[in-house]
Amino acid sequence: MTTIDPLRATCPTPAGGSERVLLGHGSGGQLMAELLDDLVTGSLGATGPLEDAALVGLGDVEVVVSTDSFVVTPRFFPGGDIGSLAVHGTVNDVAMRGARPVALALAYVLEEGLPIAELREITASVAAAAAGCGIRVVTGDTKVVQRGAADGLYLTTTGIGIRLGETCPSAAAGRPGDRVLLSGPIGSHGTAILSAREGLGFETAISSDSRPLHHLVSAMLDAGGGDVHTLRDPTRGGLAGALNELAAASGVAVEIDEPALPVPAQVHAACELLGLDPLHVANEGCLVAFVAPRSADAVLAAMRADPAGRDARVIGTVSAAPRGRVTARTLVGSSRIVDMLVGEQLPRIC
Amino acid sequence: MTTIDPLRATCPTPAGGSERVLLGHGSGGQLMAELLDDLVTGSLGATGPLEDAALVGLGDVEVVVSTDSFVVTPRFFPGGDIGSLAVHGTVNDVAMRGARPVALALAYVLEEGLPIAELREITASVAAAAAGCGIRVVTGDTKVVQRGAADGLYLTTTGIGIRLGETCPSAAAGRPGDRVLLSGPIGSHGTAILSAREGLGFETAISSDSRPLHHLVSAMLDAGGGDVHTLRDPTRGGLAGALNELAAASGVAVEIDEPALPVPAQVHAACELLGLDPLHVANEGCLVAFVAPRSADAVLAAMRADPAGRDARVIGTVSAAPRGRVTARTLVGSSRIVDMLVGEQLPRIC
Repeated sequence: MTTIDPLRATCPTPAGGSERVLLGHGSGGQLMAELLDDLVTGSLGATGPLEDAALVGLGDVEVVVSTDSFVVTPRFFPGGDIGSLAVHGTVNDVAMRGARPVALALAYVLEEGLPIAELREITASVAAAAAGCGIRVVTGDTKVVQRGAADGLYLTTTGIGIRLGETCPSAAAGRPGDRVLLSGPIGSHGTAILSAREGLGFETAISSDSRPLHHLVSAMLDAGGGDVHTLRDPTRGGLAGALNELAAASGVAVEIDEPALPVPAQVHAACELLGLDPLHVANEGCLVAFVAPRSADAVLAAMRADPAGRDARVIGTVSAAPRGRVTARTLVGSSRIVDMLVGEQLPRIC
Repeated sequence: MTTIDPLRATCPTPAGGSERVLLGHGSGGQLMAELLDDLVTGSLGATGPLEDAALVGLGDVEVVVSTDSFVVTPRFFPGGDIGSLAVHGTVNDVAMRGARPVALALAYVLEEGLPIAELREITASVAAAAAGCGIRVVTGDTKVVQRGAADGLYLTTTGIGIRLGETCPSAAAGRPGDRVLLSGPIGSHGTAILSAREGLGFETAISSDSRPLHHLVSAMLDAGGGDVHTLRDPTRGGLAGALNELAAASGVAVEIDEPALPVPAQVHAACELLGLDPLHVANEGCLVAFVAPRSADAVLAAMRADPAGRDARVIGTVSAAPRGRVTARTLVGSSRIVDMLVGEQLPRIC
């Protein structure tokens, strides 16, 4: 989920109530996604910033819960498939709140006509990914809809985790002076999916970065404790979307150093071809963190010692104002505003 | 989920691997549903009977987790809509393990073109149903797929609850001698959906029984404690499906008294018209329990004192053999075998 001001959920339906859900493409993409989140959040009475996962008090313990539906197309792509992607995505959302993922619930919506062999393969991928993350699939559900009422297979995963300690990073906890740390290269997931979908020929060179990040998070919290203010995996909307959400939720400004951004050469080439900004392309295997300056070096060292953070680096700093603004310092020393996606959202990327 | 022997998951794919997912209708319906559950369960390494919800140890507490996707058509029907149905269904699955539902996660898959007004209405229904159950919607997700890649709106709810006490009813805990208690009339949900879908004219007379049952369960456990061996809400597959699953999981026989079954007159008429057995029709607001004989009267009294159990009654008994067999004593004193659905499964009933 994205971080949206729930107050905006009170915006009235336009006269006639003839609005319809649109695909997240064209100029309405981001605006529509916000409207959806707005009304869902508003009706449901959510308050405060939405996070990747929620804290829920259950008796004496506080657990972390996250849910996501996966509708990616194609279902198999370089570096993964819808099954492993769902497990990693949910594990990562739980981990971003400083929790250790423990259990996963799994719900399929299947289209009549889906080859059973494909369902077997995806289920085996779910099982392997869950085992690789050390979590159990504890319950599940299967529904079948008639031909034409789904596109093969959709998968909803819900993850439950327990807090690693007292530290609970939050989208709203960023502070002026924080260093912005990025765990690895950006842009691989989105360009891999698009290339596989459209047959662009980058499939041999670009793989999705889909991977679990909970070990990396654990190492970061061991090194930095409560100085790790904010964690986010920049999935839909890319790094630009994540930074804008964090800046808005924390009420801070973020400046990143564009030449410091790790963009693989093939991703750069694919983005050029497709007219995409790598900052807007979805990732499934990296995270961005706001860390207090006194602990930034220690956290960075811990990240680099973890296989998922080998290429970690400082990419920017947090300042007090202008609140909610994200800017990038370019190679030539000028500064540009980094907006959320408006016109180019990529549908069914996860 | 249904209770399936996970060992059967090892059944090989037929030569060529050309099997495809079929709608749950025609003679392949139940067999296919079993195959799906088999392979999902088998690949994921589940053991023991599958329950409506799973127990998950988290630190010092044990929580109960259940997930379900909802694909019912039409989305609005007499007695409810897909939003309230999803909340009640998930609350009830959690309650069947002797737990108090606490939190709900919500994931939408939306088809491009869905009227926003309808999404608002369904979301408001989710919110109202959750408030009515005293649970919080803690997190959510929204995905949009292109026109033709879904049928309007699918909804996956995941419920989390905490155990009410030491008692944890299980599908496998039924014992010979137990009394079979049913909380209320059967057949209303399935006939209401079918009537609304097909415009059969029963819509004014039959409403879905969709309602939360967690208060009823709490009253039953207060009255019967550990003597409440087994709880199940007979949804997909109806009462016949639920009793067969419980008989198989517990390794017992069940005999029910057919004339004692509460079937509303309009449901009976609709079933006659549609060629359905009320025992096979889905319910969303009643439960069946296996209770030790010494506590049956007390539990029954507690059920009748709850609005959701006003019409509760004893409908049969559990015996030792033949294991897994469900029979019905008819009005004329003969006995018939009550099978699970094979040929008449109703697609998209929940």
